[in-house]
Formats: sequence, C-alpha cells, structure tokens
Amino acid sequence: MVWQRKDLLGLEDLSKEEIEFILSTAESFKEVSTREIKKVPALRGKTVVNLFYEPSTRTRVSFEVAAKRLSADVINIATETSSVRKGETLIDTGRNIEALKVDIIVMRHNYSGAAAMLARHVHASVVNAGDGWHEHPTQALLDIYTLKEKLGRISGLNISIVGDIAHSRVARSNIWGLTKLGAKVTACAPKMLIPPAIEEMGVRVTYDIDDALRSADAVNVLRMQFERDEENAFPKQLEYFKSFGITEERLKMAKRDILVMHPGPINRGIEMSSEVADGANSVILEQVTNGIAVRMAVLFLVAQANEHISHENID
Amino acid sequence: MVWQRKDLLGLEDLSKEEIEFILSTAESFKEVSTREIKKVPALRGKTVVNLFYEPSTRTRVSFEVAAKRLSADVINIATETSSVRKGETLIDTGRNIEALKVDIIVMRHNYSGAAAMLARHVHASVVNAGDGWHEHPTQALLDIYTLKEKLGRISGLNISIVGDIAHSRVARSNIWGLTKLGAKVTACAPKMLIPPAIEEMGVRVTYDIDDALRSADAVNVLRMQFERDEENAFPKQLEYFKSFGITEERLKMAKRDILVMHPGPINRGIEMSSEVADGANSVILEQVTNGIAVRMAVLFLVAQANEHISHENID
Amino acid sequence: MVWQRKDLLGLEDLSKEEIEFILSTAESFKEVSTREIKKVPALRGKTVVNLFYEPSTRTRVSFEVAAKRLSADVINIATETSSVRKGETLIDTGRNIEALKVDIIVMRHNYSGAAAMLARHVHASVVNAGDGWHEHPTQALLDIYTLKEKLGRISGLNISIVGDIAHSRVARSNIWGLTKLGAKVTACAPKMLIPPAIEEMGVRVTYDIDDALRSADAVNVLRMQFERDEENAFPKQLEYFKSFGITEERLKMAKRDILVMHPGPINRGIEMSSEVADGANSVILEQVTNGIAVRMAVLFLVAQANEHISHENID
Repeated sequence: MVWQRKDLLGLEDLSKEEIEFILSTAESFKEVSTREIKKVPALRGKTVVNLFYEPSTRTRVSFEVAAKRLSADVINIATETSSVRKGETLIDTGRNIEALKVDIIVMRHNYSGAAAMLARHVHASVVNAGDGWHEHPTQALLDIYTLKEKLGRISGLNISIVGDIAHSRVARSNIWGLTKLGAKVTACAPKMLIPPAIEEMGVRVTYDIDDALRSADAVNVLRMQFERDEENAFPKQLEYFKSFGITEERLKMAKRDILVMHPGPINRGIEMSSEVADGANSVILEQVTNGIAVRMAVLFLVAQANEHISHENID
Repeated sequence: MVWQRKDLLGLEDLSKEEIEFILSTAESFKEVSTREIKKVPALRGKTVVNLFYEPSTRTRVSFEVAAKRLSADVINIATETSSVRKGETLIDTGRNIEALKVDIIVMRHNYSGAAAMLARHVHASVVNAGDGWHEHPTQALLDIYTLKEKLGRISGLNISIVGDIAHSRVARSNIWGLTKLGAKVTACAPKMLIPPAIEEMGVRVTYDIDDALRSADAVNVLRMQFERDEENAFPKQLEYFKSFGITEERLKMAKRDILVMHPGPINRGIEMSSEVADGANSVILEQVTNGIAVRMAVLFLVAQANEHISHENID
Repeated sequence: MVWQRKDLLGLEDLSKEEIEFILSTAESFKEVSTREIKKVPALRGKTVVNLFYEPSTRTRVSFEVAAKRLSADVINIATETSSVRKGETLIDTGRNIEALKVDIIVMRHNYSGAAAMLARHVHASVVNAGDGWHEHPTQALLDIYTLKEKLGRISGLNISIVGDIAHSRVARSNIWGLTKLGAKVTACAPKMLIPPAIEEMGVRVTYDIDDALRSADAVNVLRMQFERDEENAFPKQLEYFKSFGITEERLKMAKRDILVMHPGPINRGIEMSSEVADGANSVILEQVTNGIAVRMAVLFLVAQANEHISHENID
C-alpha cells in the first residue's frame, strides 16, 4: 500500500492495513539505531517542530531522537504556561509555525481534539503526541509493535490493560489499535476508573486483577496519578497496590510468558513491584527502544505523503 | 557592494544601500525554503548562539530555523531570570560565549543598547534580536522585504504604523528603514503612546485612525500590551479597539489593495478584527515566511564579513 | 596507549598516563575550533544526551558545542525540579535514556556518586559533568590543559587553589589531577572552608593568601557562593575580598608570570578585582576555549572505547 495521510491523529481513524503498514515500516527503521552511524538521510533538509503544551521529557526526547536519526532539523517549543486560551489562538500558533515552512508539527496538548483541529488548518503534517484524554497514537503503536515483535502476531491475543483507563489516552489508543488488529482486550481497574461505555469499544471489563491476568498474553499497566498533596495519598497508593499492583505472586497465576508492559515512568510499589518491573517478563525498556523505530516510521510516512497530496481540504 | 559589518545592531546605522543589499540577499535565500531539501551549506561548521534575556519563542525559533537552513550549529541559551545585573557582567557572558569560538551571537535583551555594547567587546558577530525599546532590525527588514515583494518598491509608499509607538522597537526600526528607502511614514496612536520627538525622525503624526488609513499603501499594526491584571483591562481594550482597531468597515475607506501587517502575535479583537487578520489584505503570515529569508541573509552576511575584517577596534 | 574506559567519572580513578592521554588527545582537537569549518565527523550518527539535574548554562553549552563539533546529535534534558527522589529512580531514568540507543550521557547531579551509580547500570558511556561536592573532572582537565599549554609541564609546578575548597568539586578534581601529574598543590581559604583531611590528599594548607601567592606558578580561584539573602551578605563579601581577594597589589608579591585562573562565572570584587580578571596574568577565557577541546577529547575517547569493550560488568 501507499501511505496517504499527511497527519497521524489517532488510531481510531486508521484501518487495520494502515496500522500494519506503520508497523512494517518501523521494522525497517529499527535496525538504523543499531548501526555504528545511527542515521539515514530520509528527512534531510526537513524541519520537525516539537510543540509541547504539556511538559513531557520522555515523549519529546523520543521524537527528537527519531527525527535526528532521519537527519531532520528539530526545533523544540515548550509552552508550559500555555498561551492558548481559545482554539483560535492555537490555530494562529500553528499557522505561524507553518509559515516558517516546517514539514511536521509534533504536538502534545491538554485538550482532546487539539491535534485534529490543528491538522485541519495547516498544510504541514501534524503528529499527535497526546491530546488530553483522547489519543496517544505513537505510544499505542510502539506497544503493539513490541507485542508483535515478541509474540509474532496480534490477532487472537488476550491483552489486559490495568489502571486508570477512564483518564488514559494510552489506553484509548491501545484499545482502538488492538481491537482493529484482532486482539481481545480486557480492561481492569477500580469501578470509578473504568469509562462508562467502554464495552462498546469491544472491551471486556473486570474489576479483579487475577481475572485480568489469568489468560492474558500481555498486561499493559498504566501509570497511576495520585495527587501528591492529596489527603491519604499514601494509604490510597498502598491500597491500590494491594488490589491491582502486579507482583511476582500474582504473575504465578498467569501464563508463564506473559509480557509486562508500562508506558513509563513506573511508580515502583504502586503499579507493580520492582521485581516485576525488572523481571524476565518485563519488556518495558524494549518499548522505549521500539518507540524510536515507530516514531521514525510515522515521521517518514507523513512527510512523504504530504509531498504527494493536494491540499484542497486545508482551511 | 560588499557587506562589511560584522554586526547587525539597528537600521539607524545602515545606509540605504546596505538595507537594499540585505533585501536582495534575502531574495536569493527565499527560494531555499521551498526546496524539497531546505538547506544550503553556507554556514556549515559555524556556531550560532541564540542568547535570549527575554522569553521569545517566535523570534528565537525564526533565527533557529534560519541558522539550521544555512547548516549552522545552533545553541539556545534562555536566561529568563537574567543574571545580568550590570553591563560588565553582560560583557563577561559575551566574552565567555565568544571563547567557545562561536561565530554569531543573536541576542535579545531588555536594555536598549545591550547588543551594541556586546558587539564592541567580542570578535564574534552580534545580531540584535531586540534591545529594550530601541531596535529590532530583522523584524523591520522582514516588514520592508514583504512590502517590496508585494508592492515592487518602497520609495514613495505611504506606510502607517498604528499602536504603542512610544514603547516599540519594531516601530523605531521600521521608521529608520522606511524613511531611508524613501517611504513616507505616518504614526497613529493615542497621544500618550506617541514618543515626543518623533517628527524629527521624518514621521507624520495623526491621532485619527481613519486619517492614517486613508492614503496608506500599508498599515503596520503593533501588538498592544495590556496588563492582564490591570484594573479595567477589558474596558480599556474595548475602547482601544473602538478607536484604533482595524476593521473591515474602516478598510472600506482605505485603498482597495492596502496591505495589513502585524509583527505577531495578534490580539484579535483588540488591534484588529479576525476578519481583517485573516482577510485578503493581510500579509501577516507572509511576513513570518519572509523572516526566515531575511534572517538567513543577515546571518550569512555578518559571518562572511567577519572572516575578512580586522578586529582592531574590538575592546 | 589505548583508552579503555567507557566512562569519565573523576580524576581520582585515573592514572597519570590516562590523564596525559586525554590532554594529548585534546591537543589534536584544539585546532578544529580554529578552522573555517569547525567540525569533524568523529561522532557522526552518535547521540549525546546532556542530562542536567542542576541548572548550568556554561557547562551544558560547552559540552553541546563540543559534541556538535564532533558531528554528534545532541539532546538536552534539563530537570530543574529533579524528579529523582531516590537512587532507584535515577537508574530508571538512565535505563530509559539508554533504551533510546544513545551513546553518551553527560550528567550533572547534585548527589556525589550519582554519575558512578548511573555508569554501573547503563551500557552507554557516562561523563560526569559535576556530582555534588565530589568531582567535576572535565573542569579540572581543562584547567590542567591550560597550565600545560602555558607553562609547558605540570610536574614540579606550584599551584594554589583559593576559595571554598570544602564544598568544591572543582578543587577536588584539580587536586587529584595535579598531584598525580607531580604538581605541588596549596589550598588557601578561611579555616572553615578547608575540608578536614585535605593534607592526606598531598595538599599543603595555608590561611594566608600572600603565602599562597608567593611561590605559585598559578592560582586557581574558586567561585564563592554567598547566599544573596543572608544577613550581612555584603559585609561578608567585603571581608572575604579584603582577606582573600586577588588584587594587583597582591600579585606584585607573586611571580611575575603567575597565571590567574577561575572556573567562572567570576564575582568581580569578591574573588578578584576586575583589573586582575582582565589583566595580563589572567587565562580565564583561555580556560573556556580549552574546555571545548578537552570535552571533545573526552567524548571521543569514551565513545570509541565503548565500541570495543564487553559489557559484562554492567548490572
């Protein structure tokens, strides 16, 4: 197939074939980071802007490394105190960046739909690096890439996602991607952290972590955000760990080769024990490594598509 | 002509010929940003430092993109809480940067004359990216470049500058540049925002926006800085818009092809209506695009000159 | 000799031969920064991460320039509000960075031993850019490089270090390096700023600045950190300058060619007078210049060694 989208906004929009095409493109880029000279000229003379309205060292650095390995020029813009008060101004910002003749805008924003709105108003490619609670497509793609690399396929797998699913763009993107590729997804969390209509996404729900682990080929553990100053933060964390934390004890009841995944950074002793995080089932650092290959693939595909499409539908 | 200055500090210092030489050099660089590989090796192996004592994403990013398209290495130094308490220490900072054998220091500073002082004390080239209320020469050069590109000439044009002229380095640099090239400049603002001796710069003053627009070939609208927490900020903004804001209604009385310019970011509904900002007369985004070409020209010229001059006059 | 260490953690660990090998490698890199194209392809396609847990423009910029002159890709991570609350999490951060397949992590951290701990847990090379009060090896190497360049040798020199030696990683690294190369080191400071067992490092102690200057071939003056809000900050500074500040008057009693060094930034009028800082004996800016060559050498050597060693001892 030929990739035809100028933007990557979320996995909900993509077909099974498109997701598989990104994964196979990533496969061919993975080897670059193992070379002595870890660089290809694919995006030489192209400009990538990292536009981050939320602080995020991990994702920004991963995109920056990916872009530089493609020989692109990278410009970082961190607007921690967002000057965007209404959508119109985000569009102004985007149009101003585009007027610099940049090729790709990688954007993280605290509003759901921000990346899609930007994409409608600029000719440059837009890659969603996380928009509110909506989607974080490259994180899900690197999760799926890792699953496929380790297990050989996605179709028919049982994947459990554990944690605050209601407020997680990582969970949403994973659910869209995994179900499209034929995996069976189980969501496991305390009741109040399960979003209302999740079954309509084709997801099984359980409130029992042992049930979630029992037949899973992989468990993707989400980061829990406990307010540091919240009353009873520590007892709440302890209780969460007791009820949902992944421990070696619990893994004994799971498949012997179950993969343990986490988008990072891990709260050791809350979401999982240190033994599990560093144990034989953990592929957490491989996820990080695969993030480079997946982001190289995404940057490469959207840039290439953008050169060959008409821009009639840009406002 | 051959460019001979190691620094670009302001348009007040430049001759008509020098300004025109920068503009024509920029013309030859503009095409680079339209190529598939947007890069020339002109400054390969040279180091450009962006030394910003005031936060400024727009100008910093524009210089960074320009330098990278010339293949220079770029180092960003943002000192939001300026450690410069007296001039001597700015010189120390400059000399330390120069000791790294950098080629160009692009500096924004909140004190008028800071760039000139730095330039006297370092062998590296200094480009003024805004010094207090004094000058912002590359902004004016990109404004003038845009005027010339659109209207074919500068000499004989009527240009109106609207807004807080008293505290605007953009206005000052535009006035120096435009009058040297033979344009007639009108300043329009509430009385207290017109600096005292502005007529001595060859500028006509009016307090009537309709008068300013009537015969203008272009109107350059400055950003207004209303303190957010100020009492009555909103009524003041409304009143400003009512008296000086550019609207479609008002443009009906102007020349049909009047250009509407703004250095950005726009306060929609304060300095101009959204219809005007996005309308057929607006060249605001083209200014941003031309900023890259103009800054590429400036970086290129000062670096080249610096290789061929003696440094006897450096303190 | 062949350099065999994947990391540079401190000068205490290094042999005389290793220190000399870095210095001679730096010598061959010094010329690069005087070329018209100040770049060599030595680290092309390698990734250097500047991981700074303390703000430091000077050292970060020096490493960034050095890495770019070697054609490496550079990623800056500044975590001013350190999220590292326990050692384990620093290791997580390091492993995550390493999972990006980076080659070198240049780290500044407020805990002594942080760089060594990181180095034990990652395959990437670690360069210590300052760890607590422990070591700042590249600063000492550039100091020693400057001494050798100016005076032709280190062995037999009398070097006085003046200032807050008790809390100075610069002093510690200098003492290790200088004594290994055969210099005689004198420490001079108010009694409470001399660390207890310093004589065991082979250092002579004096509380008399004139005594420290009398037979010195060079005096390395440390930056004094006076708390700005401290009661009596100004009288304390005055008193320090009166007792220990380097003045032209005091230099009259020293060797005519004594070198005056300072790691920067200078507090003029506290550690030394402006006349001395800018005078004929000062080599302060040459230290900055030599920092590039020394850091190029260190980055080059650790990267090269890392390609040829086994990683059996990495946890």
